[in-house]
Amino acid sequence: MPAILERHLFGPGPSNPYPEATSALALPLLGHLDPEFLRVMDETCDRLRTVWGTANARTLPLSATGSAGMEAAFVNTVTEGDVVVVAVNGLFGQRMCDVAGRCGAEVIAVEHTWGQPVDVDRVLSAHSSPKVIAAVHAETSTGARSDIAALGAGKGDALLLTDAVTSIGGIELRADDWGVDVGYAGTQKCLGVAPGLAPFTINDRAFERRVVKPRSWYLDLGLLGGYVGEASGSGGRTYHHTAPTAMVASLHAGLGRILDEGLENVWARHEEAGRLLQDGLVERGLELFAAEGARLPELTTVKVPEGVDSAEVRKILLERHGVEIGAGAGSYAATVWRIGLMGHNARPDAVLLVLAALDDALATVGWKA
Amino acid sequence: MPAILERHLFGPGPSNPYPEATSALALPLLGHLDPEFLRVMDETCDRLRTVWGTANARTLPLSATGSAGMEAAFVNTVTEGDVVVVAVNGLFGQRMCDVAGRCGAEVIAVEHTWGQPVDVDRVLSAHSSPKVIAAVHAETSTGARSDIAALGAGKGDALLLTDAVTSIGGIELRADDWGVDVGYAGTQKCLGVAPGLAPFTINDRAFERRVVKPRSWYLDLGLLGGYVGEASGSGGRTYHHTAPTAMVASLHAGLGRILDEGLENVWARHEEAGRLLQDGLVERGLELFAAEGARLPELTTVKVPEGVDSAEVRKILLERHGVEIGAGAGSYAATVWRIGLMGHNARPDAVLLVLAALDDALATVGWKA
Repeated sequence: MPAILERHLFGPGPSNPYPEATSALALPLLGHLDPEFLRVMDETCDRLRTVWGTANARTLPLSATGSAGMEAAFVNTVTEGDVVVVAVNGLFGQRMCDVAGRCGAEVIAVEHTWGQPVDVDRVLSAHSSPKVIAAVHAETSTGARSDIAALGAGKGDALLLTDAVTSIGGIELRADDWGVDVGYAGTQKCLGVAPGLAPFTINDRAFERRVVKPRSWYLDLGLLGGYVGEASGSGGRTYHHTAPTAMVASLHAGLGRILDEGLENVWARHEEAGRLLQDGLVERGLELFAAEGARLPELTTVKVPEGVDSAEVRKILLERHGVEIGAGAGSYAATVWRIGLMGHNARPDAVLLVLAALDDALATVGWKA
Repeated sequence: MPAILERHLFGPGPSNPYPEATSALALPLLGHLDPEFLRVMDETCDRLRTVWGTANARTLPLSATGSAGMEAAFVNTVTEGDVVVVAVNGLFGQRMCDVAGRCGAEVIAVEHTWGQPVDVDRVLSAHSSPKVIAAVHAETSTGARSDIAALGAGKGDALLLTDAVTSIGGIELRADDWGVDVGYAGTQKCLGVAPGLAPFTINDRAFERRVVKPRSWYLDLGLLGGYVGEASGSGGRTYHHTAPTAMVASLHAGLGRILDEGLENVWARHEEAGRLLQDGLVERGLELFAAEGARLPELTTVKVPEGVDSAEVRKILLERHGVEIGAGAGSYAATVWRIGLMGHNARPDAVLLVLAALDDALATVGWKA
């Protein structure tokens, strides 16, 4: 048997899970209809309401990864000919256009330079009466944060659909206060849980205007309501699909850890780690990629210095130090690095380690500021 | 902290995972692009080919539960107006009709009495030139096994789509020999892994006739080819979504256990456990539900005796003995029990336990044969 590999997961996700989340994965498995599992599921939905900042009854972990959350958001709200305005300031905005298009939407993509936050005025004026306005809160591809509250304030009659994959559990997120109607996220970033579930929330306003029989059976929120015992208590569950019980138990434990620490304390911990990292990178003469004022603390983007081979540095980091950082996304694959300090990794010691490892790798390839 | 609950999962799934599968869940998490994870993923796909009985290059674990496998099968092969013949002999055949209908198919449902195997002649003569013929190999709702090889032999130009959720890793399954063009399964039954992934396979014949831009982005097999490095080796991966790395590591380990034991030995172990259980139930004066000659060894259906409250017996089993068995499905909810001996639970000692526990529970409610 080969030695067990341990990695410092400082890329754009997954991050190293909270220890409680890992331990819960290996607990004795429960059946998906076991009364104890239903209790864990209910509590998980409650805890998700807290991290989403919502009172939405329809808040649940979908049984697939964050990208399926995106699909669920569109397939339940958009059908043939609906107008969807998408703020595109990175890869995940682009993906929204693809997914909405497959639902038959008339997509209006509002393009931005990558690394910039969403231009709220341009997005709100892109169409007079869209059914949906969609935007990414924290663009995983660029490290930029956008102002979802401002989109919510100006959305008018439209539904506001928000990608919170890289923001949830890491930075301020207040779905109800900000006017988010539909939101999806992932478990493997700031929530500090392995990938595999998509925390999802939809309010009554959006649910009432949903596509009643969406093209997807698996992601049909009308059917999924029964699955989590919506409005009927544990006794009234209807079987939809077999819940991924180990992953739900792990999410339950990860969320428990976050709420024990206190959500605002967790946000502050991410804020501090990101600031320390970004200061350290700048001190070394490296240039940050995301626009100043819009930089995410949990995901830092930094330009690969002129003349340095991105892949070679990442290989040294991984093989010599067990440190994973991410390449850039899309056309920035070779010219940007993405360094995540998410969930359990949002700690000063992780900052020290990643900076020291980067110093070593850059010295090895002969770079001097 | 409450005591850790341990359950004997003798329902229709999930089953208790193989210990190796549980341990692997708690290994240090790897990133989805880590070279070591890509190796584990490649090996998992290889191992899946063995349990499917296929050489299909496009064999992979989809990142969602078995029901999403069903959706992937239809959404990639069926579009507006395509004729789909579905053999309906239980709940999962019914679900196929719903899922195919949402893809725009003209669905021809060939209805059967529940508990019976699929009537191959009726299914093959239901339409002269369907695009797809779909059938469930092992109906989880009824415990009946159907003859997929006979459907494959007579399918003509149609694509044969097969649900192997409850058969894979438990009974003989030979996708290529039997002419299966598209198949999906689950991890949580005879594969002995927690729920959360859908082992999937599609051959070249079906892939060439697929829907090129299906309605689902998440389940688009054209995009998923790059995700598992199809035809390009590990170096050529394209990012699609973040693989659920802990679950894939667990599936890898569960499959390793099965292949170490030997797939045919595993089938024989399921066969023996099922026979012992069914003999024991009949000896006690209980009546089996599935048709004789079509009874699955891994999932036994038995009629609730006249005058016995199904729920009360299941409650005694669960609370007194930690034994979970399943209620019946659909209109048989109160009149049939489903007892699964799947994966790690396909053992003589599990048979002894479930029979002894059932004796105790039936005695408690005052039943005598």
